[in-house]
Amino acid sequence: MIQKLMQKIAETKAPICVGLDPMLSYIPEHILKAAFEQYGETPEGAAEAVWQYNKAIVDAVCDLIPSVKPQIAMYEQFGIHGLIAYEKTVNYCKEKGLIVIGDIKRGDIGSTSTAYAIGHLGEVKIGSKAYRGFDTDFVTVNPYLGTDGVKPFVDVCNEYDRGIFVLVKTSNPSSGEFQDRLIDGRPLYEHVAEKVNEWGAASMDGDYSNVGAVVGATYPEMIRDLRKMMPKICFLVPGYGAQGGTAEDLKYCFDKDGLGAVVNSSRGIITAYKKEQYASFGPEHFADASRQAVIDMISDIQGVL
Amino acid sequence: MIQKLMQKIAETKAPICVGLDPMLSYIPEHILKAAFEQYGETPEGAAEAVWQYNKAIVDAVCDLIPSVKPQIAMYEQFGIHGLIAYEKTVNYCKEKGLIVIGDIKRGDIGSTSTAYAIGHLGEVKIGSKAYRGFDTDFVTVNPYLGTDGVKPFVDVCNEYDRGIFVLVKTSNPSSGEFQDRLIDGRPLYEHVAEKVNEWGAASMDGDYSNVGAVVGATYPEMIRDLRKMMPKICFLVPGYGAQGGTAEDLKYCFDKDGLGAVVNSSRGIITAYKKEQYASFGPEHFADASRQAVIDMISDIQGVL
Repeated sequence: MIQKLMQKIAETKAPICVGLDPMLSYIPEHILKAAFEQYGETPEGAAEAVWQYNKAIVDAVCDLIPSVKPQIAMYEQFGIHGLIAYEKTVNYCKEKGLIVIGDIKRGDIGSTSTAYAIGHLGEVKIGSKAYRGFDTDFVTVNPYLGTDGVKPFVDVCNEYDRGIFVLVKTSNPSSGEFQDRLIDGRPLYEHVAEKVNEWGAASMDGDYSNVGAVVGATYPEMIRDLRKMMPKICFLVPGYGAQGGTAEDLKYCFDKDGLGAVVNSSRGIITAYKKEQYASFGPEHFADASRQAVIDMISDIQGVL
Repeated sequence: MIQKLMQKIAETKAPICVGLDPMLSYIPEHILKAAFEQYGETPEGAAEAVWQYNKAIVDAVCDLIPSVKPQIAMYEQFGIHGLIAYEKTVNYCKEKGLIVIGDIKRGDIGSTSTAYAIGHLGEVKIGSKAYRGFDTDFVTVNPYLGTDGVKPFVDVCNEYDRGIFVLVKTSNPSSGEFQDRLIDGRPLYEHVAEKVNEWGAASMDGDYSNVGAVVGATYPEMIRDLRKMMPKICFLVPGYGAQGGTAEDLKYCFDKDGLGAVVNSSRGIITAYKKEQYASFGPEHFADASRQAVIDMISDIQGVL
């Protein structure tokens, strides 16, 4: 699956993913109004608004990009109806030819991790049949429980040609509380990176492994060191735009062909119409504003490659 | 909420929770058959089987115990229908007066962690209305992202009188890969424990904090040390029974009143009918076998208190 992602990045010249992390406050009034008129101010109404909002953005940007990254928490907050909107979004993005990275940050042990992996990357067996739960191509995984938590995902990746991105160094201010603490003279996240290399060796697919790493963009020096440590590992890089990372910070993520990393922007794209720079589009044309923001982001990143 | 849990433990004299972690292979043939006859070998059929299985067990044990711990992965593997069975299970347990600990091991940052917290412990605002997503009383939380990931949960706990259990030391064989590594001469999990104290101080509720800790039962010496380090923190202890922990291993979890910890058993209870010890009940009476296993577990734990 990572090879497919790299091919799509090479085709689009856009090593990015658009984060589909909808909050109700992001959604233009006319969409909310229509959804609430149909379903009331209910979880079903909220889910409909989220879905219509996502669909319009995906329609406007899908020819420009290789991948999207829906953040499942933003759907899960609305309970079952929200998760139905997540499922519809995943399936729609796949119909449009996009690779879908489910940002689920799951992680447990043994049969429990297997259940998550099956539900998001594989198939669940029911009697003599098999079904997909959420049909994502990649998911994000939390490493705190060690190999027991990650290997079940890798096994499912190998069986179904899917991939994962393991949290190595996150982009939030407090990520250092544990991740930066020194163990034998090196920060915890480097020890996690070493394990990612080990886990990744069991799932190579072309130049890269189906086991990738989440590496926060707000720490450029760390990115450079981690890039050297993990030459076969694709980076999923949050923190561009709204979280403060710039294209210049990102240059160390990529290999000489401009591959090996996918940079995420969520709010910077999906709420573009609220930014002064794109305000002239107006809320009615929010999806066109998102398209322009994607074009600008690609150009910004290509500038440092 | 932790005070309510402690009260229920004192009333039942049972510092335990029953892990509702259904796998299809656990469910007696007659339940599977009925569900598949009604809905086919489909996710809907699997969800119906899971729900009927859970309901029978809950009916059989609810007067003996204070709490249950459904593991959401086991439901999520079936996609939306599985999550509907999770929701039904949570709501049914609450109707029966049980405290429900959602074993979700979520964790992200800022507004994303808030979304998880809202979806599982609080209420989501939709227009002028507010709704509960999954109505659990506690959830488990992964600490790898630091305070940014945990504080949003604590805030929601304070607003809605709910609680969390933060993963400190898990019970799986590879938990030591990162959790046991020494930082300034002390294992990472002790640094996490320190932060749990800090987070917990912001949500005291009686003798204990609404912020608890997951502490694996397979490591009795660690439990003793952690109990001393975290006097105001309730422990959620997995690993009893099927994972190899014994009642003797657990004695250090508790305070002098036999409170301050809740010990989980999943397979040991819900698949009791498959064990030689309870085989005489037969698959038709699986729930009675679970009841006897609960009685035996309570007696076993009371023996060390």
